[in-house]
Amino acid sequence: MKKVYYPYEEFREDLKELAKSIDFDFDTIIAIARGGMSIAHMLGEYFGIRDVYTINSIGYEDTKKLENVMIYNLPNLRRSKKILIVDDIIDSGETMREVVKTIKDRYPKTDIKTAAIFYKKSADFKPDFFVKYAQDWIDFFWTTDLKV
Amino acid sequence: MKKVYYPYEEFREDLKELAKSIDFDFDTIIAIARGGMSIAHMLGEYFGIRDVYTINSIGYEDTKKLENVMIYNLPNLRRSKKILIVDDIIDSGETMREVVKTIKDRYPKTDIKTAAIFYKKSADFKPDFFVKYAQDWIDFFWTTDLKV
Repeated sequence: MKKVYYPYEEFREDLKELAKSIDFDFDTIIAIARGGMSIAHMLGEYFGIRDVYTINSIGYEDTKKLENVMIYNLPNLRRSKKILIVDDIIDSGETMREVVKTIKDRYPKTDIKTAAIFYKKSADFKPDFFVKYAQDWIDFFWTTDLKV
Repeated sequence: MKKVYYPYEEFREDLKELAKSIDFDFDTIIAIARGGMSIAHMLGEYFGIRDVYTINSIGYEDTKKLENVMIYNLPNLRRSKKILIVDDIIDSGETMREVVKTIKDRYPKTDIKTAAIFYKKSADFKPDFFVKYAQDWIDFFWTTDLKV
């Protein structure tokens, strides 16, 4: 798969576009760690939201050798009514789907929307808000910039 | 107070320096939200740490009208042994001091170190790792870049 470097300057412009497209009056942002953290940070500053949290996921193989996603570190959301969940890319869609399910199961009254910069059409979950379709492998600046 | 814009390019170089200075074999990163989130994201990628969490704080006035900091959303750290807590700037020092105290109280066996990009000499808490002394008001790119 082709690798494409995704620099901060492009991220900033895409995130402006994402921010403008979000017509949802949310009170809480949850970043899927680690990929969604820089997005959540900047959207939190932009929208003046202080309740910015993270949630974590880990992939594992079950007994049938199927790839599964386990969600952990669910934040306490008793005070949250409208939640925006953010990630960098919706790839297979499995992580975002499991995160939404986990939060809905525990807090059924919350209103949840999802956002990502990139969305792969082959994913089985489509985010409410996204900026670009992904085809190549994306080398995000946060993964590579400290290593050069 | 003089305002100084702090762009991504300078952050990236400072964060490289911070990363190189951290001689601590940590298994967990906790970002103080929101300021520490982009730092935690990139350090997590750099050091290959997946257990990257956030913790939140809110300022309030107590009955004596003193400024206090309340910490909330403490992650579950049962599996964590060595924790790096990160924030963008140690200003008064009160938030970082309270975060360390909150974690130590709940998880007394953990080994905790702290890191920030900026440190004000007037703070009453000195981080274990930092890059620069702060004098002016710093306009971090994550606060301003989406607004221009």
